[in-house]
Amino acid sequence: MKLHIAVLPGDGIGPEVIAQGVKALKAIAMEFGHVFTFEYGLVGGTAIDAVGNPLPESTLELCKKADTILFGAIGDPKYNMDPDSKIRPEQGLLNLRKSLDLFANIRPVIAYEDLLNKSSLKKKFIKDADFVIYRELTGGIYFGDKIISEDGNYASDSCGYHRFEIERIAHLAFKAAQSRKHKLTLVDKANVLESSRLWRKVLMELAPQYPDVNLDFLFIDNAAKQLVMNPKQFDVILTENMFGDILSEEASVIVGSVGLLASASIGPKYAMFEPIHGAYSKATDKGIANPIASILSAAMLLDHFALFEEAALIRKAIDKSIKLHITTPDLNMKYDNISTSKVGDFIEDFINNPEETNLN
Amino acid sequence: MKLHIAVLPGDGIGPEVIAQGVKALKAIAMEFGHVFTFEYGLVGGTAIDAVGNPLPESTLELCKKADTILFGAIGDPKYNMDPDSKIRPEQGLLNLRKSLDLFANIRPVIAYEDLLNKSSLKKKFIKDADFVIYRELTGGIYFGDKIISEDGNYASDSCGYHRFEIERIAHLAFKAAQSRKHKLTLVDKANVLESSRLWRKVLMELAPQYPDVNLDFLFIDNAAKQLVMNPKQFDVILTENMFGDILSEEASVIVGSVGLLASASIGPKYAMFEPIHGAYSKATDKGIANPIASILSAAMLLDHFALFEEAALIRKAIDKSIKLHITTPDLNMKYDNISTSKVGDFIEDFINNPEETNLN
Ligand SMILES: CC(C)[C@H](C(=O)O)[C@@H](O)C(=O)O
Ligand SMILES: CC(C)[C@H](C(=O)O)[C@@H](O)C(=O)O
Repeated sequence: MKLHIAVLPGDGIGPEVIAQGVKALKAIAMEFGHVFTFEYGLVGGTAIDAVGNPLPESTLELCKKADTILFGAIGDPKYNMDPDSKIRPEQGLLNLRKSLDLFANIRPVIAYEDLLNKSSLKKKFIKDADFVIYRELTGGIYFGDKIISEDGNYASDSCGYHRFEIERIAHLAFKAAQSRKHKLTLVDKANVLESSRLWRKVLMELAPQYPDVNLDFLFIDNAAKQLVMNPKQFDVILTENMFGDILSEEASVIVGSVGLLASASIGPKYAMFEPIHGAYSKATDKGIANPIASILSAAMLLDHFALFEEAALIRKAIDKSIKLHITTPDLNMKYDNISTSKVGDFIEDFINNPEETNLN
Repeated sequence: MKLHIAVLPGDGIGPEVIAQGVKALKAIAMEFGHVFTFEYGLVGGTAIDAVGNPLPESTLELCKKADTILFGAIGDPKYNMDPDSKIRPEQGLLNLRKSLDLFANIRPVIAYEDLLNKSSLKKKFIKDADFVIYRELTGGIYFGDKIISEDGNYASDSCGYHRFEIERIAHLAFKAAQSRKHKLTLVDKANVLESSRLWRKVLMELAPQYPDVNLDFLFIDNAAKQLVMNPKQFDVILTENMFGDILSEEASVIVGSVGLLASASIGPKYAMFEPIHGAYSKATDKGIANPIASILSAAMLLDHFALFEEAALIRKAIDKSIKLHITTPDLNMKYDNISTSKVGDFIEDFINNPEETNLN
């Protein structure tokens, strides 16, 4: 297969981790005889610094003409600590999601057997936890009208949803549940929010089309608790943009590190693959950033193009690296000095020689 | 001291648990020679069922003329499962908060030494956790404009904040930090929301007035993770209405049961004391509802009137009941059959005979 891939490293640790994702994809191409080409674009704080715009037109063009997109990370505290700054790195990511209509952000959460003891949660609560969050990504309070009064003493954000925005991601979530454990949980705040009541209403209306899926409802406050009290109850969680942001980051405690969670952002025409973690500027260039989320994003990219065997090989390589403690310091209890690129090298080697690679 | 207390049992388990709070207050009055009088009012689903209004005028009047308010719980699934219903139990609570200007909801989270093993979190992560959440309670998306389009295909909620709404609760939170561990964490989503940026800006402006307080900032997604990854890092958390709702319910995993968390809702003129838990209709009238949150709410009420010795005695009684396993099934690992009112009776007895009560 030929794939032209837009690579957007972004800010902070983005460039270091995405380099490992690219490395894994190159190894896969070599091993399976695909032709993957990579073209880099600026986004986020790095793009502001370079050209004054968090999403330069050239980057958007690059994404549109590419077959798909690999994304690194975004954010820079130097912009966030100034609440008056009008231009911010995150606008790059948000505009990209919106411009490419990437409405469904899919975030799988699977506890690795070998990492159960890395969690602050007790083993028995997380062993075999395996669910996926469908987060709406182009609506809600992220994209509603924003108001600041002239005197700067009042500010507001609006959280709105259209029926079609709910329907399209709901269908994806119902279908995901059908291919999994047949359970779909809508998380909302329908006891307070009008927009949540629309979500609930639409879901109830669609439910009869999926008679083999058990649909239930949780308020977001309860869901934030249930997620860490009893994560194994979940199969597919569907929720709006902001609640999905909160729950998926919270869910990282289940897997032991936010450096392990990847996501796919899907739309009718384009798709982008990104770690759920941020730019962690403090860790930049220290070689301590966990590249697994980026490498897993690459695996999700391959799945998207039905390259299932290829994706499975990447996941096998990741499992192996974890089993052998070839991991960055956030996970490592055995070795001191395994850097971001060392982990990437191991995974590359494993892909090149799946039979031979064994450091045991 | 003379106190006339409005008692609003509300829905579900509200009446059962509040009866234990009242029992504790009566025992305190007896023991310390106070005169506490109690007057009951309807609110929530119960009030809708009785008079068609979740906050009858008579209840609001009662609250205004009373010295303070004890609240039970609110919510009834029969209303929430109908997204078209125009009248809902929660409106009773929200209107009450707004009408009485109860802008600061104070939610202490303290891990009980004897209950550390009840949490899904590992002991070492929660032992000695002790923080308090200051949740803004009368602004934000709970009270912003709500829109539904005529055809019902679009719905929105607006999240707005005025500077004065942020300032008044920020001052309380800074002061709380001064009397505690001198750390204040603002939780917001300033990388996305205009309203969050106003919060951040106001907090930065006020900080110089509290030079002995360390102010820091966390995005809500990160905070939801940190709260269960490393809860001991927190001292005072300040946040807007919805984020506070989510974080405080999530925080209940730290103490092992949501049935243990109480809160004070404070305004310039009125104050109300309520468990953070909901109405749990499924548990109604089974005698299994944990009354401790309601009894702790009574203790917070006493603190509010500077009856510190009295409040301390209630807390001592609660500690004792936990130590002796005189607890409802959510916490009990020793006895089978200790009901809501049994726990209340024990605490009453302890208050009446603090020296003698000892079932060991
Ligand atoms: C960087 C930020 C704008 C982003 C979000 O809130 O969506 C991030 O937290 C994420 O989850 O992808
Ligand atoms: C019942 C509901 C409206 C309420 C809220 O969301 O504020 C409750 O969850 C709480 O935390 O007091």
